[in-house]
Amino acid sequence: MFYFIGLGLGDAKDITVKGLEIIKRCSRVYLEAYTSILTVGKEALEEYYGRELILADRDMVEQEADEILKGADVSDVAFLVVGDPFGATTHSDLVLRAMNAGIEYRVIHNASILNAVGCCGLQLYNFGETVSIVFWTDSWKPESFYDKIKRNRDMGMHTLCLLDIKVKEQSMENLMRGRKVYEPPRFMTVAQAAEQLLEVVQNRRERAEEPAITEDTVCVGLARVGADDQAVRAGSLREMAECDLGAPLHSMIITGHLHPLEVDMLKLFSSPEGLSGLKMTDSSTYVS
Amino acid sequence: MFYFIGLGLGDAKDITVKGLEIIKRCSRVYLEAYTSILTVGKEALEEYYGRELILADRDMVEQEADEILKGADVSDVAFLVVGDPFGATTHSDLVLRAMNAGIEYRVIHNASILNAVGCCGLQLYNFGETVSIVFWTDSWKPESFYDKIKRNRDMGMHTLCLLDIKVKEQSMENLMRGRKVYEPPRFMTVAQAAEQLLEVVQNRRERAEEPAITEDTVCVGLARVGADDQAVRAGSLREMAECDLGAPLHSMIITGHLHPLEVDMLKLFSSPEGLSGLKMTDSSTYVS
Repeated sequence: MFYFIGLGLGDAKDITVKGLEIIKRCSRVYLEAYTSILTVGKEALEEYYGRELILADRDMVEQEADEILKGADVSDVAFLVVGDPFGATTHSDLVLRAMNAGIEYRVIHNASILNAVGCCGLQLYNFGETVSIVFWTDSWKPESFYDKIKRNRDMGMHTLCLLDIKVKEQSMENLMRGRKVYEPPRFMTVAQAAEQLLEVVQNRRERAEEPAITEDTVCVGLARVGADDQAVRAGSLREMAECDLGAPLHSMIITGHLHPLEVDMLKLFSSPEGLSGLKMTDSSTYVS
Repeated sequence: MFYFIGLGLGDAKDITVKGLEIIKRCSRVYLEAYTSILTVGKEALEEYYGRELILADRDMVEQEADEILKGADVSDVAFLVVGDPFGATTHSDLVLRAMNAGIEYRVIHNASILNAVGCCGLQLYNFGETVSIVFWTDSWKPESFYDKIKRNRDMGMHTLCLLDIKVKEQSMENLMRGRKVYEPPRFMTVAQAAEQLLEVVQNRRERAEEPAITEDTVCVGLARVGADDQAVRAGSLREMAECDLGAPLHSMIITGHLHPLEVDMLKLFSSPEGLSGLKMTDSSTYVS
């Protein structure tokens, strides 16, 4: 049997009892390590499970899938994924290869950022399409995420923005020379995402577009959701651009129409100054 | 500390290691039992945890919240929720009451149906607003879910339909006489949901509306997601109305625009006949 096992979002103990039992009896255990991270590393997981893990980077999953699946028809092999195995990323390719090879598979689900963001008090029912915000470069500044957020907001829906992760990134020079030398991993912060969004807001203003989002739009910044030291901050987009939520991973929500109970919950996560004179001017804009 | 602990979706062992450790040390443990169910009952959980659980029905959570929170400032109390504590349902009211009473709280996340449906191979990124389909009565047949599905499909998005659960329902007579006698619990099946949807499709056709959904629209029926005996079936809406996916809980997805990899995944869950001559005529309609 080939097992896809979700690890949840915080540390080693966020795995389910069922998942842990399976890991202990498998012949090989892979750790997918390019779409998300826990607050603990491979070594901490190995110590907790009492066994060795094989790190599976993107190259291995895409190019050596048959190697990963090998023997899973006669013994148990596990593939560990941070969050839920079919959460923010799907591993459909691996499923299809397993099925083609006559290998049965099972999924052990766990929390993913897509449902755990509910901890900020916004109703998951009221979220529209999830968007990704990627790191801009000097020459590449895609704005498509703005239009998706706008579309969601037009319907009153909240938008979860997943923020870019750059793992095993190669510099242009190393890439061109074919040298497998990697840059340190980078994780987009809420402040960086908010800055990019503010830049798009400004661009659209210059084009005299009807503003769908302004500096005062209510947003929620989240960091290390599910971990002991998780941080949640609610405030204007301008505030998001200035906040420091600490270590990765970060996510950001752009709110749509806010229900009174949602507002009450968000106030728990506002800054004291933001809270004091907080009043709502429209469905999703606070002014102090 | 007041703990909100997600139990996941299958059986007793779908709790996280962290959640289980907390349950074992709490002074009181409540089991929320009106928004969802596991494949095992309260007794099986009590045996697995080695301790007594207090069943918290809707009346208790809404009317005796202070009782539930009592003492959580000096000892640990846990509130168990099937799925994720802030998944399909939020317990914001309990959070706000805790905060007002100066009681700290923590959330132990877990899988919820909102992310676990990814197991069928549809990308969670491509889901729009989640809808609920309620049991129709002779005199009350709301069609609003159809319009939400239509809106999602117009944008190419899939729609997760959560199906009605009736627990502790009173007959009109018992309700009027104030007798706390309850009907057996009812859980809407995929077939029932599909039948209601087909009726709306027919109603809209009679009103000469542009059809957003037809009998051939590709749907996915899911039952007992995350359990050993989970069932997933992909097929036309017409097929959904005739399928029997067994014991609860059921959910249904109405697809929007399908990516080729999503189609390949859905074929794993189609009936053999459906599979043989399957071809796509447009982005989301199969004909055999």
